[in-house]
Amino acid sequence: MVGASVGCALRAAGVSVYLADEVSSHVQVAASLGAGVADECDPAAIRLVVVAVPPDALADVIASSLATYPNATVTDVGSVKGAVLAALRPRGLDLSRYVGSHPMAGSHRAGPLAARADMFVDRTWVVTPHDTSAAHAVLDAEELVRRCGGRLVVMGPAHHDEAVAQVSHVPQLVSALMAGSLVDVPAEHLQLAGSGLRDVTRIAGSSPELWQQIIGANRVAVLHELRELSASLDDLVAAFDDPDAVAAFLARGQDGTRALPGKHGAPTVAFARVVVVIPDEPGALARLFRDIEAAGVNVEDLSIEHDLGRKAGFLSIQVLPERAAELRAAMIDAGWQVRDNDTTI
Amino acid sequence: MVGASVGCALRAAGVSVYLADEVSSHVQVAASLGAGVADECDPAAIRLVVVAVPPDALADVIASSLATYPNATVTDVGSVKGAVLAALRPRGLDLSRYVGSHPMAGSHRAGPLAARADMFVDRTWVVTPHDTSAAHAVLDAEELVRRCGGRLVVMGPAHHDEAVAQVSHVPQLVSALMAGSLVDVPAEHLQLAGSGLRDVTRIAGSSPELWQQIIGANRVAVLHELRELSASLDDLVAAFDDPDAVAAFLARGQDGTRALPGKHGAPTVAFARVVVVIPDEPGALARLFRDIEAAGVNVEDLSIEHDLGRKAGFLSIQVLPERAAELRAAMIDAGWQVRDNDTTI
Repeated sequence: MVGASVGCALRAAGVSVYLADEVSSHVQVAASLGAGVADECDPAAIRLVVVAVPPDALADVIASSLATYPNATVTDVGSVKGAVLAALRPRGLDLSRYVGSHPMAGSHRAGPLAARADMFVDRTWVVTPHDTSAAHAVLDAEELVRRCGGRLVVMGPAHHDEAVAQVSHVPQLVSALMAGSLVDVPAEHLQLAGSGLRDVTRIAGSSPELWQQIIGANRVAVLHELRELSASLDDLVAAFDDPDAVAAFLARGQDGTRALPGKHGAPTVAFARVVVVIPDEPGALARLFRDIEAAGVNVEDLSIEHDLGRKAGFLSIQVLPERAAELRAAMIDAGWQVRDNDTTI
Repeated sequence: MVGASVGCALRAAGVSVYLADEVSSHVQVAASLGAGVADECDPAAIRLVVVAVPPDALADVIASSLATYPNATVTDVGSVKGAVLAALRPRGLDLSRYVGSHPMAGSHRAGPLAARADMFVDRTWVVTPHDTSAAHAVLDAEELVRRCGGRLVVMGPAHHDEAVAQVSHVPQLVSALMAGSLVDVPAEHLQLAGSGLRDVTRIAGSSPELWQQIIGANRVAVLHELRELSASLDDLVAAFDDPDAVAAFLARGQDGTRALPGKHGAPTVAFARVVVVIPDEPGALARLFRDIEAAGVNVEDLSIEHDLGRKAGFLSIQVLPERAAELRAAMIDAGWQVRDNDTTI
């Protein structure tokens, strides 16, 4: 999917693309979607090779591509960078034409049928030059990102792997840790669960097989972060009698949420919520959004909230704090039932 | 706020309500909102007292209420039950007329101005009889929940506290643990954060002061759960070299997400997502929902997704899996740009 999407994006940008895959039907499907052509090419004329194969096959295909296409820059789209480099280095190859990359886009779907030319538009795409990458090869990889519409970030392979351990792989394990503890919680107790628990455990619902592979390929960086997390948890347990220590732990967490870049990459704004009851009837959301539009207040974010045992839900509309009272009044005028933002405690 | 809301709900149900508060202006505001009257009452004629005061004042006010109103059942609306009982027991009172309760509703707002008669409608409200509660007192507390429109759950105080430790207090600490680790992560790395990290850390943005009080009042149950979590994390770290152990840990997390009751209390259904690009222009959401309505497909859930650096966002529409293709086709026909559900890996 990612490989064929790169093909579609480059074709849309006017670049000639040749397709190759171990599975010949993949080439046919990708070609039919406009990802490139299945023709033979002159290997010496190829400028860039994009390797999009499963993690375990990356090093072999990168090595063979460097040999087959003597003038090409070779890049890959794997989600962990250090392991590939470690597998390539002992082979004694000249790796100057290799530069790794990682587009932060994609989905759990696989195969060329899911390809889309716009998959990378405005998505972060990390290019990870290593210490023996040639400058022209780095420029080629950066040009690939630009041609595909991605948001370029350049970072060394080790930094990249540390970053994804911190912001992606460890959060996945923490979510699984919390969710795993629920297996032994009686169903009666789970009745008391609110939206907070659902948020914390949401990503733990993802494929264990996929995540085991990703985390396995980034074992060292993830384990390092995991040990620090475990030490913080031990400190909390040890100081649990001290209210000030618990308050400081919670305050540090709040600081961490503020460190995360907000919507549009801008500093996080605390939006106000206006919560409207959605009647369980056809067209309710369409009428609701018509009335929100009529109120002239920009919607910053929204979500549907549920209650156990209630068929209708609540639409939580996030707006700039200074506009909340206005929207709330307009909704009430338009006949909607408005509720406060209930935070279950 | 919670106390005045109980007053409003009971008045709406035709019950006579007398108000009392240490702050006399609170009584005036609550009375003006229809929560009851500020008049003197005959203490012997009072049937039920609902104590809604800060955690540290609960035991004193419950004890004085039992003394002042000799024929009344006394309940409270605090979020932790065992600590109050432990504070009451050494006083040598007859506690048969006391039954604790915990409405799972409310917000961070305080004071009677935020009161609403419908605050408890369809919300879980736990009644927690203790071993010396009289049967008639339990019935009174249950009747309170019914009159306020709540969803009654009956559970012993210790079970209640264990349940909220498991589904609310520990998740709060886990979210803070993850978010706290981000304080030391370079801003450059945080650029790679996706929606998963935001989900896991969202509730860590709540008030540390409030949560320190709640968790402090449930110290024993929370510490017990926290130790189990810490042991699971240690096990993961110890077995991190074994791919099967990591896969089993992740699979257990996935099982846990499935144990959580889904929307409407029904078993969780895996909805399919249709992701539509929201143009950054006025009225886009209203037009979008008009077209979704026209497609005749029921919206099960929705959320707005963002990309760093992109002004417009994506509307992720969750529908029954068998209706997704239909909605997707209808959206494309109506001229919307539809994307796959991107899961950043």
